[in-house]
Amino acid sequence: MNSENFSISEKIVSPSYIRQGSQARRSHEQLIRLLLEQGKCPEEGWSESTIELFLNELAVMDSNNFLGNCGVGEREGRVASSLVARRHYRLIHGIGRSGDIAAIQPKATGSSLLNKLTNSVVLDILKLSGVRSVASCFVVPMATGMSLTLCFLTLRHKRPKGRYIIWPRIDQKSCFKAMITAGFEPVVVENILEGDELRTDMEAVERKVQELGAENILCVHSTTSCFAPRVPDRLEELATMSAKYDIPHVVNNAYGVQSSKCMHLIQQGARVGRIDAFVQSLDKNFMVPVGGAIIAGFNESFIQEISRMYPGRASASPSLDVLITLLTLGASGYRKLLAEQKEMYTYLAQELKRLAAAHGERLLHTPHNPISLAMSLDGLQTQSSKSVTQLGSMLFTRQVSGARVVALGNKQMVSGHMFCGFMSHSEAYPHPYLNAASAVGITRDDVTLCIKRLDKCLKSLRKESSTRSVSSGANKCDSCGLLVHGSIGLLKCHHY
Amino acid sequence: MNSENFSISEKIVSPSYIRQGSQARRSHEQLIRLLLEQGKCPEEGWSESTIELFLNELAVMDSNNFLGNCGVGEREGRVASSLVARRHYRLIHGIGRSGDIAAIQPKATGSSLLNKLTNSVVLDILKLSGVRSVASCFVVPMATGMSLTLCFLTLRHKRPKGRYIIWPRIDQKSCFKAMITAGFEPVVVENILEGDELRTDMEAVERKVQELGAENILCVHSTTSCFAPRVPDRLEELATMSAKYDIPHVVNNAYGVQSSKCMHLIQQGARVGRIDAFVQSLDKNFMVPVGGAIIAGFNESFIQEISRMYPGRASASPSLDVLITLLTLGASGYRKLLAEQKEMYTYLAQELKRLAAAHGERLLHTPHNPISLAMSLDGLQTQSSKSVTQLGSMLFTRQVSGARVVALGNKQMVSGHMFCGFMSHSEAYPHPYLNAASAVGITRDDVTLCIKRLDKCLKSLRKESSTRSVSSGANKCDSCGLLVHGSIGLLKCHHY
Amino acid sequence: MNSENFSISEKIVSPSYIRQGSQARRSHEQLIRLLLEQGKCPEEGWSESTIELFLNELAVMDSNNFLGNCGVGEREGRVASSLVARRHYRLIHGIGRSGDIAAIQPKATGSSLLNKLTNSVVLDILKLSGVRSVASCFVVPMATGMSLTLCFLTLRHKRPKGRYIIWPRIDQKSCFKAMITAGFEPVVVENILEGDELRTDMEAVERKVQELGAENILCVHSTTSCFAPRVPDRLEELATMSAKYDIPHVVNNAYGVQSSKCMHLIQQGARVGRIDAFVQSLDKNFMVPVGGAIIAGFNESFIQEISRMYPGRASASPSLDVLITLLTLGASGYRKLLAEQKEMYTYLAQELKRLAAAHGERLLHTPHNPISLAMSLDGLQTQSSKSVTQLGSMLFTRQVSGARVVALGNKQMVSGHMFCGFMSHSEAYPHPYLNAASAVGITRDDVTLCIKRLDKCLKSLRKESSTRSVSSGANKCDSCGLLVHGSIGLLKCHHY
Amino acid sequence: MNSENFSISEKIVSPSYIRQGSQARRSHEQLIRLLLEQGKCPEEGWSESTIELFLNELAVMDSNNFLGNCGVGEREGRVASSLVARRHYRLIHGIGRSGDIAAIQPKATGSSLLNKLTNSVVLDILKLSGVRSVASCFVVPMATGMSLTLCFLTLRHKRPKGRYIIWPRIDQKSCFKAMITAGFEPVVVENILEGDELRTDMEAVERKVQELGAENILCVHSTTSCFAPRVPDRLEELATMSAKYDIPHVVNNAYGVQSSKCMHLIQQGARVGRIDAFVQSLDKNFMVPVGGAIIAGFNESFIQEISRMYPGRASASPSLDVLITLLTLGASGYRKLLAEQKEMYTYLAQELKRLAAAHGERLLHTPHNPISLAMSLDGLQTQSSKSVTQLGSMLFTRQVSGARVVALGNKQMVSGHMFCGFMSHSEAYPHPYLNAASAVGITRDDVTLCIKRLDKCLKSLRKESSTRSVSSGANKCDSCGLLVHGSIGLLKCHHY
Repeated sequence: MNSENFSISEKIVSPSYIRQGSQARRSHEQLIRLLLEQGKCPEEGWSESTIELFLNELAVMDSNNFLGNCGVGEREGRVASSLVARRHYRLIHGIGRSGDIAAIQPKATGSSLLNKLTNSVVLDILKLSGVRSVASCFVVPMATGMSLTLCFLTLRHKRPKGRYIIWPRIDQKSCFKAMITAGFEPVVVENILEGDELRTDMEAVERKVQELGAENILCVHSTTSCFAPRVPDRLEELATMSAKYDIPHVVNNAYGVQSSKCMHLIQQGARVGRIDAFVQSLDKNFMVPVGGAIIAGFNESFIQEISRMYPGRASASPSLDVLITLLTLGASGYRKLLAEQKEMYTYLAQELKRLAAAHGERLLHTPHNPISLAMSLDGLQTQSSKSVTQLGSMLFTRQVSGARVVALGNKQMVSGHMFCGFMSHSEAYPHPYLNAASAVGITRDDVTLCIKRLDKCLKSLRKESSTRSVSSGANKCDSCGLLVHGSIGLLKCHHY
Repeated sequence: MNSENFSISEKIVSPSYIRQGSQARRSHEQLIRLLLEQGKCPEEGWSESTIELFLNELAVMDSNNFLGNCGVGEREGRVASSLVARRHYRLIHGIGRSGDIAAIQPKATGSSLLNKLTNSVVLDILKLSGVRSVASCFVVPMATGMSLTLCFLTLRHKRPKGRYIIWPRIDQKSCFKAMITAGFEPVVVENILEGDELRTDMEAVERKVQELGAENILCVHSTTSCFAPRVPDRLEELATMSAKYDIPHVVNNAYGVQSSKCMHLIQQGARVGRIDAFVQSLDKNFMVPVGGAIIAGFNESFIQEISRMYPGRASASPSLDVLITLLTLGASGYRKLLAEQKEMYTYLAQELKRLAAAHGERLLHTPHNPISLAMSLDGLQTQSSKSVTQLGSMLFTRQVSGARVVALGNKQMVSGHMFCGFMSHSEAYPHPYLNAASAVGITRDDVTLCIKRLDKCLKSLRKESSTRSVSSGANKCDSCGLLVHGSIGLLKCHHY
Repeated sequence: MNSENFSISEKIVSPSYIRQGSQARRSHEQLIRLLLEQGKCPEEGWSESTIELFLNELAVMDSNNFLGNCGVGEREGRVASSLVARRHYRLIHGIGRSGDIAAIQPKATGSSLLNKLTNSVVLDILKLSGVRSVASCFVVPMATGMSLTLCFLTLRHKRPKGRYIIWPRIDQKSCFKAMITAGFEPVVVENILEGDELRTDMEAVERKVQELGAENILCVHSTTSCFAPRVPDRLEELATMSAKYDIPHVVNNAYGVQSSKCMHLIQQGARVGRIDAFVQSLDKNFMVPVGGAIIAGFNESFIQEISRMYPGRASASPSLDVLITLLTLGASGYRKLLAEQKEMYTYLAQELKRLAAAHGERLLHTPHNPISLAMSLDGLQTQSSKSVTQLGSMLFTRQVSGARVVALGNKQMVSGHMFCGFMSHSEAYPHPYLNAASAVGITRDDVTLCIKRLDKCLKSLRKESSTRSVSSGANKCDSCGLLVHGSIGLLKCHHY
Repeated sequence: MNSENFSISEKIVSPSYIRQGSQARRSHEQLIRLLLEQGKCPEEGWSESTIELFLNELAVMDSNNFLGNCGVGEREGRVASSLVARRHYRLIHGIGRSGDIAAIQPKATGSSLLNKLTNSVVLDILKLSGVRSVASCFVVPMATGMSLTLCFLTLRHKRPKGRYIIWPRIDQKSCFKAMITAGFEPVVVENILEGDELRTDMEAVERKVQELGAENILCVHSTTSCFAPRVPDRLEELATMSAKYDIPHVVNNAYGVQSSKCMHLIQQGARVGRIDAFVQSLDKNFMVPVGGAIIAGFNESFIQEISRMYPGRASASPSLDVLITLLTLGASGYRKLLAEQKEMYTYLAQELKRLAAAHGERLLHTPHNPISLAMSLDGLQTQSSKSVTQLGSMLFTRQVSGARVVALGNKQMVSGHMFCGFMSHSEAYPHPYLNAASAVGITRDDVTLCIKRLDKCLKSLRKESSTRSVSSGANKCDSCGLLVHGSIGLLKCHHY
């Protein structure tokens, strides 16, 4: 309500009450003002009512919501289903223009503001998370892999002779395919084993650069967040080498924003050497639905070049999700989540260690990996190679999601390239193992239940007494009589 | 509620009522069954309650909604904000896997079903709209331009020597950039003028093919939907030529699904010649938010290859929007929208013709363009070249969106390529003009208001008596006294 | 956004776009201004976005949504469930104060405005619907029956000797109980038969008044809307008599707002005689959920006395529902609904007449009842008295809701009073019959389907060949193969 | 999805995933089964997704949501606005029938189930909260006051000679009006002062009973929860006396469910003597919107009699709110809230004591009141009688809600009865005072902020240096520069 409407209201309800109501409104406006002025994530999270008020205000500014609009274009932001209109807060025009995904749309002032603010708030969070000197970033409604592809395609125009991408091996399909899709030839550099850890083989990398010729190399493509026992790449050394040979350097920081270690590596790499862009997933770092990424870098004009490579408007949905989420959490809320991630990492490590010991296994020593852990499965492998894969499906059935079992000797062809020891980031890792990660948002319950169920599975596999069929029975909880599925249970019950 | 729960309910509420309630539930289930069985758009639209029931059922099958789940992976579908969770119906895992955007996710059975069904329902609608022999398609959460890029990137692997893309000129940035981003060289073929229409110059196209050598050409990139006076490309002839020279052929069918003419051209092209893929926007054809496209084709395995090129999971948001929309409309509802588009096209043409006559202008004769129309602005141009652009901003201020004014002699550099006469699809189109389109969802009110406001603008420009500042005044509606902005009005009032 | 925030936004997005966005906002504000200024139902309905904007603005003014509020009272508008908060738009404080349900709450300025505006908009609609001289009204979150009770309880204080309520018989439990609950003795006056119609027996009424003594009579309690063959009471004559004897007169106008005839009767009654209050249901007249009523009258201070009788705050939910609904419809939308009600009444009458003829029955001639119709079931009764009730349950099973079968000779005790011929408003109505009503919101499909199913039921009952069990089978629709329940079908299918 | 649909889905998505999805569904069904079977509040709260699934299932069973329904009645549950339909989860038919608010509706099986379950779950919570022997209860969509009226109106039929209601004084308008509205004469019994506490004067009560004659007394109307320094009535003694004289006894337990002390009093009263009904507010005890109450008692048939007195159907909205809330909280969540209420009571008492001491005042000693506290304002009164009321408005302006200032010597006429010392429950309480309450849902922040602001107000009043106008200035927070209103602040800022 504007001041005129507040005045009229004073004739209906007592002026002093209306004045208080209008002051209350102003306090929401103040929060919005701070956001607009500073472009930063607010320190304290906003209430749902402030967020919805703000989104409604934005929507009102888009032409599809003008009360007197008439549209005779081919794209007018019309919506056939009111369910759809509502779930997008009537922000229909997406983000960007045909020329630039970060550009402003004349038809959609509100959506344009949303887009600008989101990029600005996200930049603030990247700084807060450790990359203090980041210069520019934008949210793109594509997976991390496709976003890497966009970076590579942008580099093509700057390095017409570039054919190869130097890539310290990480066994994850989409970052490999990102290079293939962009039309380049990945040069896979095997990792070296240091203790239990798999680390960047800097010598091999440099050898490859010299062998292929720097000018034929599009870029170095390194990785931070990854499954143990692989650890983040030696970013400082890779960045230094990139600078030395004048080769662009793109970092796959998929779920690294949540880890101060990964962010520190990027900050350091950029300080001492060269990092052109680093790409991270929205969903894994900010607890939003799958589908968006952030492309960030230290040189604003290069990041802008990338944003200008996206042909066409794009979905505003991931931007909206991350903006709502960061406004809800506030900087303090996000910091709290990061602190919990660290705490749960320690707890998970300690519990896995205890469990491993009890089953004659070992928590692999991978101190450089701040998120993922691995526990050896040597005993299980000895017993029968089938047991290792069986453990995986037992965990799946028991609703332990994300635990990942890696057997030895896997071979797999990915886009025409054969990977020996696939999934283990190495041609011959010495142990089969099980991965578990402490990712942002994990709770103590997640860890406790996982350890409990894992323990039961291991016991049951050890016994070989698979007499009692796993998926057979339905048990009752002793305390409340609730029907519980299998030996571990589909149904949460507080006694369990 | 399952049958057990219905039985228990009979002890609370009379059995005959419960039985009726359970039968009522079954009728929703029946609709869902038909959808699952046939994978087609239901003939009649579903009620909101059936749709929400269905989406809730899907969500329940995703692991992030399992009541007893514990997650120790790096991506667990956790959501920090309940506003975000709700607007996605708690479907958080997106679509696809790192290997393939059309693949099934073990963690997300419901989302996987959603993805499969959406692609299947959309395929049904493409058939219904006229491309009866389409074999396969998938929804991708990217703009039409970026989707074209993905097609070109896929073709690179099949045609390693392909450097050029033959492209009958259409002045729209994102489809041009789609080729640049993919790393290819667009070969722009100017259109020829036939009457008022700009049409494909088949001779020039074939000349280029011969000149460059078929094996060096990645593909032909043609266009259906476009702004008048350009008309859809001669698809049959282009397809025939593509087949003759064994060159792939990709069609930009941006907003062509809504037009039986465009769809017919594609169907015919594929019948007599070669079309490898055709790409269309979700938002422009299905009245959903910006951000998705459909990649479709006549050879299932090629379409699958494209879907396997997308590296990583992707946003399910556009798929969800289009599925909700098509279930809401039903096939009959969509057919009705198409019929209205046609009817409004006729109405718009007739009104523009009348208006043009009144102002000494002419509705350009462009019968091959089924959506967009153009009215000459020769008189305005004669008066002053500034008047033409002024008309554009006057319409913008008066909330006429989508009307597009094209002056003569525009030059523009796009990604390093100079376009003379930019926006007019021609180096020297003989008239300046104004575009208006009858796109799906347009209403009779849109047309009437647009004509009314356009008339006032033209009159006001003619007079040159811009004495009364346009944005100055606020008038009252004569009938109701409502304050109305400017001379045309921001505020809709039914008397106006 | 206030003007300050718009200014700041101009640094982020181009000022001319922001200006347009801010003007767009103003057009919503204008609508709100008109509502606040005039307190009338807007002529044209508002868009959902204007409505939600408005409700959010109201909510922001309530203390439970103040960002800096601290609460140390016993009622602070706290909400434990966010589902609940959202569904009430965070308007938690209800309406009224302990002293008066129409009073303003200091803690809840927004809710107070809502309450005032609702009463004002509803008053406007009562006028529009025909009671032009209504002086005051308020929405109360109670059923029509309980609202009548409140009126009677208020009258008690004005007429301490009043023990009896004169009540022309209408066989509907809650209005009878309204008198019992209030602690009065209903004096039932039987109706007289005129043609097929049951009408007020004015002579008997006056006889009763004289017999009991006017001062011992609390009030006359008359009825407008009712099931045929009863027709609205002779309000003019009752009102004239009430004036003559100085007896208060309360009208049960349950679903009469939708009928210009009922409203005209009230307007006329008040003009020529005495009507103290008339009460109508929200749900039946305005298509909102059950639970609210409007108490209205021609003397503002008496209506205020009633509103002051409600002890305590009350639910704002019915007020919110009716306000949203009337803002959505607008006056023009409500008028349209009323016109459709009339049209469907004619259609239903004609179809029932046709059907009756085909089955040897008769549409009873009840021209004074503008909503409900009755068709004789003499033939069915002759066949077997059980058939009449069986018809009722057959219709229920076939999802014909609201059709009401009235057999002869029903006796029922209601709150200690024996009604002979219960449900027929008469001790000995000459025909058994079936009621069907054309109430606001009814569609052509409702009528067509009802007639179709009724026809089948009558045929099946006539045949006595109940060989094929009614609830047995599931048939397929001939056109689409959809499974259809029973012989009539639970599942709507457009071919059916 | 039923089992048939799950089977069909196995053709689309791998059977093992579908099986897991179907098991996940079953775990929601299990929770619903337990609720249906036991009719108790679940121990652990449900997730939002289970709740919405359940409500959707209920809605599907109501005839207004039948896909094949045709309606020809006067009330068909039609809804004009989709905003309204959605916010009620499409449960439109309300609760009850014309005969009984607890009855089942044939047209609305889902709503009927909802109603039955709500009453059953609420009964369970009353037991859990301390009234273990409660026999029956029902939720009614009316304020506590109006619900008391309904109880009194029911008693009238059992005690035709009853004219008086014995009422130990409590200065709250709606419970007084509840008696007036029902048509009875309240007999106000003044409280006696014991220390600082105002307590029931049992002798005076008994004297009145004897004086008026038990048979002329409709009932005793006692109170539990109230503002200090009044304390809950001596229920045991009143109940004993009621039994002795065979007089019904109705307890106003407005916000007493949240206090084990109040509930214990009721339990004891019923054990040793007579309590016919006790009435409590939904909003104050369960953190739902204003508008509902629970009528409960120890004799099922009497409670049923009351529920049969409500004439007509009623709003389901309060039932829906309390059901959603209790399912969300679970019994454990509600218990936790009660524990926090107690803890905050202690904290508030301690802080008020400290503050009082600092300002030369005293926390009144009222150990029998478990919710409300009072701090003397003798000093302020001495200074100027205006200061006391000024404190009230200062607190209001500073967004301290619920703090209540009671000056001396207030006289007020309520419904024709003069109350001396109104608001203080006593004709001559010796101190002016300020009330603050620790009600369910209060947070530590509420207390801290309240004390802080109260302290500032008291200081500012003491100084008499009201030179700086209170509402004048806007200050900046020292830390963040945020604009803060007045001396205390409308805008929450984490530094403050």
